[in-house]
Amino acid sequence: MALEQSLAALSLATVSSESATPTKTLVFKPKTAKTATPVPVIVFALQSTQTPSNVIAKAAGVKEPRLAKEDLIQEFFATSPKEFSIANLNKDSAAKVKFVIDESIVKAPEDTVLELSTESSKASLPAKIVVSFLESIGVDLIAVDFSADELTEVAPKKEVKKKDKDAAKIEDAKLIGINVDKAKDFSTWYSQVVTKGEMLDYYDVSGCYILRPNSYFVWETIQDWFNIRIKKMGVKNSYFPMFVSSRVLEKEKDHIEGFAPEVAWVTRAGSSELEEHIAIRPTSETVMYPYYSKWVRSHRDLPLKLNQWNSVVRWEFKHPQPFLRTREFLWQEGHTAHLTRAEATEEVDQILDLYAGIYEELLAVPVIKGKKTENEKFAGGDYTTTVEGYIAATGRGIQGATSHHLGTNFSKMFDISVENPEGADKPKVFAFQNSWGLSTRVIGVMVMTHSDNKGLVLPPRVAQNQVVVIPVGITSKTTDEERKAINDGAAIIEKRLKYADIRALGDYRDIYSPGWKFSDWELKGVPLRVEFGPKDMKQEQVTVVRRDNGEKSVVKLADLEKRIPEVLDQIQYSLLANARKEFDEHRVIVNEWKDFVPTLNAKNVILSPWCGDADCEDDIKDSSAKKDDGEDEEVDEKAPSMGAKSLCIPKEQPTLKEGQKCVKCDRAAVNYCMFGRSY
Amino acid sequence: MALEQSLAALSLATVSSESATPTKTLVFKPKTAKTATPVPVIVFALQSTQTPSNVIAKAAGVKEPRLAKEDLIQEFFATSPKEFSIANLNKDSAAKVKFVIDESIVKAPEDTVLELSTESSKASLPAKIVVSFLESIGVDLIAVDFSADELTEVAPKKEVKKKDKDAAKIEDAKLIGINVDKAKDFSTWYSQVVTKGEMLDYYDVSGCYILRPNSYFVWETIQDWFNIRIKKMGVKNSYFPMFVSSRVLEKEKDHIEGFAPEVAWVTRAGSSELEEHIAIRPTSETVMYPYYSKWVRSHRDLPLKLNQWNSVVRWEFKHPQPFLRTREFLWQEGHTAHLTRAEATEEVDQILDLYAGIYEELLAVPVIKGKKTENEKFAGGDYTTTVEGYIAATGRGIQGATSHHLGTNFSKMFDISVENPEGADKPKVFAFQNSWGLSTRVIGVMVMTHSDNKGLVLPPRVAQNQVVVIPVGITSKTTDEERKAINDGAAIIEKRLKYADIRALGDYRDIYSPGWKFSDWELKGVPLRVEFGPKDMKQEQVTVVRRDNGEKSVVKLADLEKRIPEVLDQIQYSLLANARKEFDEHRVIVNEWKDFVPTLNAKNVILSPWCGDADCEDDIKDSSAKKDDGEDEEVDEKAPSMGAKSLCIPKEQPTLKEGQKCVKCDRAAVNYCMFGRSY
Repeated sequence: MALEQSLAALSLATVSSESATPTKTLVFKPKTAKTATPVPVIVFALQSTQTPSNVIAKAAGVKEPRLAKEDLIQEFFATSPKEFSIANLNKDSAAKVKFVIDESIVKAPEDTVLELSTESSKASLPAKIVVSFLESIGVDLIAVDFSADELTEVAPKKEVKKKDKDAAKIEDAKLIGINVDKAKDFSTWYSQVVTKGEMLDYYDVSGCYILRPNSYFVWETIQDWFNIRIKKMGVKNSYFPMFVSSRVLEKEKDHIEGFAPEVAWVTRAGSSELEEHIAIRPTSETVMYPYYSKWVRSHRDLPLKLNQWNSVVRWEFKHPQPFLRTREFLWQEGHTAHLTRAEATEEVDQILDLYAGIYEELLAVPVIKGKKTENEKFAGGDYTTTVEGYIAATGRGIQGATSHHLGTNFSKMFDISVENPEGADKPKVFAFQNSWGLSTRVIGVMVMTHSDNKGLVLPPRVAQNQVVVIPVGITSKTTDEERKAINDGAAIIEKRLKYADIRALGDYRDIYSPGWKFSDWELKGVPLRVEFGPKDMKQEQVTVVRRDNGEKSVVKLADLEKRIPEVLDQIQYSLLANARKEFDEHRVIVNEWKDFVPTLNAKNVILSPWCGDADCEDDIKDSSAKKDDGEDEEVDEKAPSMGAKSLCIPKEQPTLKEGQKCVKCDRAAVNYCMFGRSY
Repeated sequence: MALEQSLAALSLATVSSESATPTKTLVFKPKTAKTATPVPVIVFALQSTQTPSNVIAKAAGVKEPRLAKEDLIQEFFATSPKEFSIANLNKDSAAKVKFVIDESIVKAPEDTVLELSTESSKASLPAKIVVSFLESIGVDLIAVDFSADELTEVAPKKEVKKKDKDAAKIEDAKLIGINVDKAKDFSTWYSQVVTKGEMLDYYDVSGCYILRPNSYFVWETIQDWFNIRIKKMGVKNSYFPMFVSSRVLEKEKDHIEGFAPEVAWVTRAGSSELEEHIAIRPTSETVMYPYYSKWVRSHRDLPLKLNQWNSVVRWEFKHPQPFLRTREFLWQEGHTAHLTRAEATEEVDQILDLYAGIYEELLAVPVIKGKKTENEKFAGGDYTTTVEGYIAATGRGIQGATSHHLGTNFSKMFDISVENPEGADKPKVFAFQNSWGLSTRVIGVMVMTHSDNKGLVLPPRVAQNQVVVIPVGITSKTTDEERKAINDGAAIIEKRLKYADIRALGDYRDIYSPGWKFSDWELKGVPLRVEFGPKDMKQEQVTVVRRDNGEKSVVKLADLEKRIPEVLDQIQYSLLANARKEFDEHRVIVNEWKDFVPTLNAKNVILSPWCGDADCEDDIKDSSAKKDDGEDEEVDEKAPSMGAKSLCIPKEQPTLKEGQKCVKCDRAAVNYCMFGRSY
């Protein structure tokens, strides 16, 4: 592979820099017993550095290293000595060599750019990137100060590694793209996308994560969208304390039972033990409903509709996962009380529609609306409605958000009641309650759905930066005047876009090549790239490249304000359409049990006629967890259960044939239920 | 006092209701030893209820009750028997009587309206209000079922109290206005205003409060206003975890020292003891800065400007106070890192201007911008700027919000550094940092500043409801047609206002009289009342009444959309102008120490020439806490210190005379400093 191609494969575009420092890459073969496999020693140094073989021998701990011949290089790196460069290294070959690096490279000033060359190609790269790349493929760097008077190894291997480890990680995250395949190692891929896409960072306290601006912006957009709509429905925002006294929390034994093992307890303040231990809310029913009881005195106080945007804490001991399972997470929780059941249940549906809207209109993630089975519903409620998503890469379903009708279960526990409007002699009326919540998990679902091996893909409506403007085509032959014209032109384009309410930003950093910038912004998920170069200038146009599909087109400067929003809309639309197609293709009707597990194993969720019986549901779960098809299932430790859970009873139902039996048992089916492995 | 006036004083307007149930109020004198003071027994019953004296005797536990004569009534209630009503009762007299109440009143259907009458006056009131009023003045109600066959006391005193206590409290909060004078008992007044104005409710966990929609809306308005402006400055919102491991928190000993006694610790999750105890952030320096260190690798990563809207916990053991001192509170904390000091300090001022804007433009609260003294600055920073407010009712200063320049103190601790842009051989550069925060305390300052004895006064810009539309002038003589025309007209006015983006609401509840509604919305602080009655309809107008000053005027229906926003602007402007006048009048220049304490005692804050010495500052505090003027100072337990603290060194300085000495010591003054008792 040529050097450029190889680097391009690493998402590293070449840097055209006159000031790049030339380097050399040499391969040595040490003296080796004839029966043993030789361990080549690669020396990577500045062109100007003298690299005596006795220093190399000492540093690498080998005897009599000599420049390797063609056959060895061909054998180890499948290339000729003239074409060999560090780009020929990969994880496999890295494990088989020793690697001596010039300390001048490791300790180079941050902005240093190196020139790597072979006989047929040449490329310039920031030194940090080169080091990061080497670290990333698992090379053990032996840094050597060739200039030292004493021919000693000045920086022992371990020390260098430690010293540069953090830096490598950071530069890695920043400069080098995703290095695993979404299809092959989904879990590592996801972790890389969310961190390198700067959505989130891992935090010192396990299970807690930092929401960086790139993801918090998504959350703010959701907040704005949802607030406008719930306020129209008469819901008001408020804030209740994060603490619940143990007395109050434990009063509602049935309710708290599910949460108890996950409740975080404050027992001490400063150096004082608290007399009564205080819980951090895992959810706010017991926080809010005593006050609902107090505030609701007359039927005129109903409906009472409050929502809050807050964080809750569930100290899960399962493996945490960014956005999806975190010990503290942000959400909104709406809690409403109504005079009539009809009014309450109408609201449950309205909210579910809003949740579907957040997924589909903002995040471009298709969802299926439905009702949870008795097994899967919120224990305290009458019924639970849900929007369910699908992660194509793993073939699993994922719960999106839930809207519960609580009936009068809680109002009876907490005495949220009013005198009967029909007369004080009639029995008092308990309020009909709903609760509904949507959390930052939505962001994880969005990332899993759209992002790819180049990094994050953000739908335009929730992207902090919708457009990045990059000046291109500036070479060593470009005159100062031309360079200025291009840069100024790009800046004007950025301004015009901003003025048209498009969230645009320009990248005018001259240390990086356009190609490097392309990769960087692709990694961060910016939906649209606008390139502006000499040819564009001449033709009064920009070249635009879509992040979602790489499609390139040209927009006349005169049409900028009209055309760019259209392209952004197209991207938003395509993302949803493609994800919907994928979901539709992997939501398979299965009427007979024999097809159930094979269909599941083919990364599908399943629609099956079902009897509605809870035991049967358990049976389906158990049976689908077994290797019924004789094949080994892929083992994924992070799956809460490898059996198929019921995801929901979809609102839109396939027509049930007369006399249709349950997919699993002999009972008559009452409806179609969606089953799947899930998060 | 006549009944109407008396009720008016209670902010209870009369209800004109044809369906009111007549009542009677009787005073009995039981048989008493001649030397003893008699205990009158008041009987309050429906007119239709028979109230035999033997039943009264039994219920009240007295002997031979007889209708009281004029002298006794005059002595106890300062009125004649013909004019006596429950409105003549107050906290003093309530303690000296027994009070028997007809159970038909206590248990009356919720909507029951009672007619109270004396020879010269008549008033109708919901039964609930009457009961609440009695409870509120401390009457022990003895409820008696006069209709029972057996002449027994059916509801023992205690039981009734318990049963109706909650109800009374609620109705009290809702229906009865503020019953203490802002000028006389500020603390109780404040507590009543925030609860009865439905800004906040007290919570089960001490020091924590519920922010109800009326106050949370203020916070949301502040968020929107501030977000727009900081985003323009390049600040991005994010969210960091609420937890800090003890290891990290305690690493920064100097920083944490101030917070340590107030840190809440999570030691247990579910039933598991945590291996490492985890703190809830009291502020986020130690949460965020390790990651700043990680993210900032090159000077191109600067400035890094993040903000978060979150809650923090400081488990203070001092007396909590709604909004001002709470154990959990909402705030924003901005943390920024810059390459140069100049850039950082410029931002400190920009943010302080925004804080002043929140106070003055949104909350109509005037503030003084300045710098904290060394004693009062944030210990970890280089200097602290502040906006300082003034609470006229108590004559105290109050810190509004602070914007700190941290210098390189934290960047050195946490290694937030970059290579020197001037060359790698030059020493590395530590970032110059700022932090700035504003909390829900602002809401408390706003309430204290504008509200009055009628309740809350909300500036229009932050009022959830800016206008309340109330149909008026509907009497028993009103035809159905007229009534409909008035109600429909009011509803159209409400709709027109809403359509013009005014936050309007209509109150069409027919159970309450207009006067009652007036009081209710005044209590809740709605800035403008729009009345629409028969006369208005005829003259194609509405009558508008300002909450802030009671001013009444007329607006032609045709001018509604133009004129109402103007009136709202006038209210906003007046509130600020009045508060500013008050602050200006009570910010007094004092050059000589002899005038210092008397001026302070006259509820002023003081501008004095000052030497700038920390010990002198302490001396001023100590000396002003003593009773130097020979008068007893008002003791207020809730004052953190009765000595005068330095509030700030104002940015706008009076001119310092040449050779001007410090107000307290013999040193030369370096500037004017603002001193005051404070919150």
